[in-house]
Amino acid sequence: MSNSVIYLDNNATTAVAPEVFEAMKPFLTTEYANASSIYPFASEPLHAIAKARGQMASLLGCTPEEVIFTSCGSESDNAALRSAVKTQTGRRRILTTAVEHPAILNTCRDLVKYAGIHVDYLSVDKFGRIDLDEAKALISEDTALVSVMFANNEIGNLYPIRELSRLAHAKGALFHTDAVQAIGKVKIDLANDLKDVDFLSLSGHKFHAPKGIGVLFKRRFAPFAPYLTGGHQEHQLRAGTENVAYIAGLGKAAELAAINLEEENTRVKALRDKLQDGLLATCPDAAVNGDLEHRLPNTVNIGFKYIEGEAILLRLWDRAHICASSGSACTTGSLEPSHVLRALGLDYKSLHGSIRFSLSHYNTEDEIDRVLEVVPPVIRNLRDLSPFGRITG
Amino acid sequence: MSNSVIYLDNNATTAVAPEVFEAMKPFLTTEYANASSIYPFASEPLHAIAKARGQMASLLGCTPEEVIFTSCGSESDNAALRSAVKTQTGRRRILTTAVEHPAILNTCRDLVKYAGIHVDYLSVDKFGRIDLDEAKALISEDTALVSVMFANNEIGNLYPIRELSRLAHAKGALFHTDAVQAIGKVKIDLANDLKDVDFLSLSGHKFHAPKGIGVLFKRRFAPFAPYLTGGHQEHQLRAGTENVAYIAGLGKAAELAAINLEEENTRVKALRDKLQDGLLATCPDAAVNGDLEHRLPNTVNIGFKYIEGEAILLRLWDRAHICASSGSACTTGSLEPSHVLRALGLDYKSLHGSIRFSLSHYNTEDEIDRVLEVVPPVIRNLRDLSPFGRITG
Repeated sequence: MSNSVIYLDNNATTAVAPEVFEAMKPFLTTEYANASSIYPFASEPLHAIAKARGQMASLLGCTPEEVIFTSCGSESDNAALRSAVKTQTGRRRILTTAVEHPAILNTCRDLVKYAGIHVDYLSVDKFGRIDLDEAKALISEDTALVSVMFANNEIGNLYPIRELSRLAHAKGALFHTDAVQAIGKVKIDLANDLKDVDFLSLSGHKFHAPKGIGVLFKRRFAPFAPYLTGGHQEHQLRAGTENVAYIAGLGKAAELAAINLEEENTRVKALRDKLQDGLLATCPDAAVNGDLEHRLPNTVNIGFKYIEGEAILLRLWDRAHICASSGSACTTGSLEPSHVLRALGLDYKSLHGSIRFSLSHYNTEDEIDRVLEVVPPVIRNLRDLSPFGRITG
Repeated sequence: MSNSVIYLDNNATTAVAPEVFEAMKPFLTTEYANASSIYPFASEPLHAIAKARGQMASLLGCTPEEVIFTSCGSESDNAALRSAVKTQTGRRRILTTAVEHPAILNTCRDLVKYAGIHVDYLSVDKFGRIDLDEAKALISEDTALVSVMFANNEIGNLYPIRELSRLAHAKGALFHTDAVQAIGKVKIDLANDLKDVDFLSLSGHKFHAPKGIGVLFKRRFAPFAPYLTGGHQEHQLRAGTENVAYIAGLGKAAELAAINLEEENTRVKALRDKLQDGLLATCPDAAVNGDLEHRLPNTVNIGFKYIEGEAILLRLWDRAHICASSGSACTTGSLEPSHVLRALGLDYKSLHGSIRFSLSHYNTEDEIDRVLEVVPPVIRNLRDLSPFGRITG
């Protein structure tokens, strides 16, 4: 199937890199020992985990001991939030934003319900930007944790993590960032640039490792109460027999991400810009959602007024097997428009017709040319069918 | 490496079945879509998850909706225990046993520390058996959950889950069983035999799926508060983008486990018995640990008096690349003797020299013959070197 697909939904998930698959294969076939066993048959798995920890640390600019392998970004988010509530006794508030991933928002709701925590939400303006003064005012001596995403999954906005983490530390609060969408797309340097970040979440399947593996970065000395309790694995910080294959794959993906970071910000960004400029030039009543200035290089979210996102997506598939998305894959099944776009205060005419295109380094210029050919007539045609389109257009 | 290995450590982890690897491969290569996406490119992953849910339900005798895919057995254990504490408000006790896996024991400790829960522990006799009368006496109106393992990982004991779950329900407590070591080795029928089991944990890597995938069975209508909160996945009961590849592999492993169950209880059991009888006949001062009557068909734990388990294991590796274990892989790194063997009240002379051999249907009679050749001289030789051996032997 995938050969015929024009895959522009890389913020939902990515293709597993062939090099990653190769790195995993031994541990799904011959090298099946439990990394904790004492016989030499366990040494390959053990070395693979250590190697991957180093590769990941090198991508993030941290030490290997600060890398905790988890099963996904959502687990990492749960671990950071729930740990802060346990360790920061006496502080009963969490500060986050209205545009976080459901892994943060629903975990906050759970902590309100079961742990008596109060959650404050930073608002966003119509470009999805937050206000550092509002953040400063909302962080108090009662704030256990500030958790703000590194980059937004739907509109691609980049948030001022360095400044926010400093504000948190100034008031004795811990700082966490969900960097699931940022890894491999923008430089993350925890040693120098982001010294005040205590916890950072990432997910393998957003940068060409498989679904089902993630990392929680925990800064050395940051207080932590394990989320998944049990065996001694991950330096006693995360129980469960190590998923050696996916850990080895994640390490390889981290190595590739470091190599491809420049291309992401040059060739991939140029393709994204070509797509964005081409669509704005050929489709009237269309506008980019989000912050044009501080944005992921691979993402563009465009609101096409007067029509429905799902209809656009179905047509894009039918015409050229183009994969893109409205809203996020993690909230599929809900008929509600995306909570992110609603937080921007978009008017309902654009709210429903917003499409996210998210690229990866596997995309080619030919694919973008094809998308630019296909989209404008789809939009025209749907508007011809739409009552809104006929009334206003 | 694995071709030259005589692998008798299948309670630590198992080889991924070649059929399981084949079932996973498409989802680690071409079929990489997010199962939650709306375009038809996501239909293969979506169908694979539904198929695996059916295969797993069929192995367990439950409905597909009662299968929640998790990242491992430890996660499933955490989910069951932590959920019971959240939903059974007003009940502040958990009853478990002294011989559970660390995923249960350490989660209980965590709940004591952070949730004010009181934990009662069922004791075991010198064969590792529990007493139903003691269980009955310890379950009260204050018991939120009774959690007893289906089979013990170190000695293979099978526990009376049907009776225990009835006792729990009679007092309005929920019942959970960690069945990680039982799946694929003994018949589990949740529809008929085990109607009072509310939650059951299992782990893929104990029956030839990879490490990093598990299941929590949650009976329909059993009260549940999700452990991993976030997106809508798993019917809103477990967040995180679905690990499609491993879920597909787990489904195939469940299908194979159902097929191989009879062989496990005939041919594999016969090999285990041959190994046990042969070792007892050739090694003096050796005895089986555990309950000979109610035991997994693949497991035998033998205490060799006067010598150290680690020394035996190193020799077994050196002589014939035999993999077995002392204690469990999940507690490696600790110099303490196994908490399970200590709970049996074994005297220190056997405590340190206990070896677990755990078979799978990949083992052959030739391998067992080779082990029977190798072990007795190893034991003799180590006893010759041991001060205990020289004094008493």
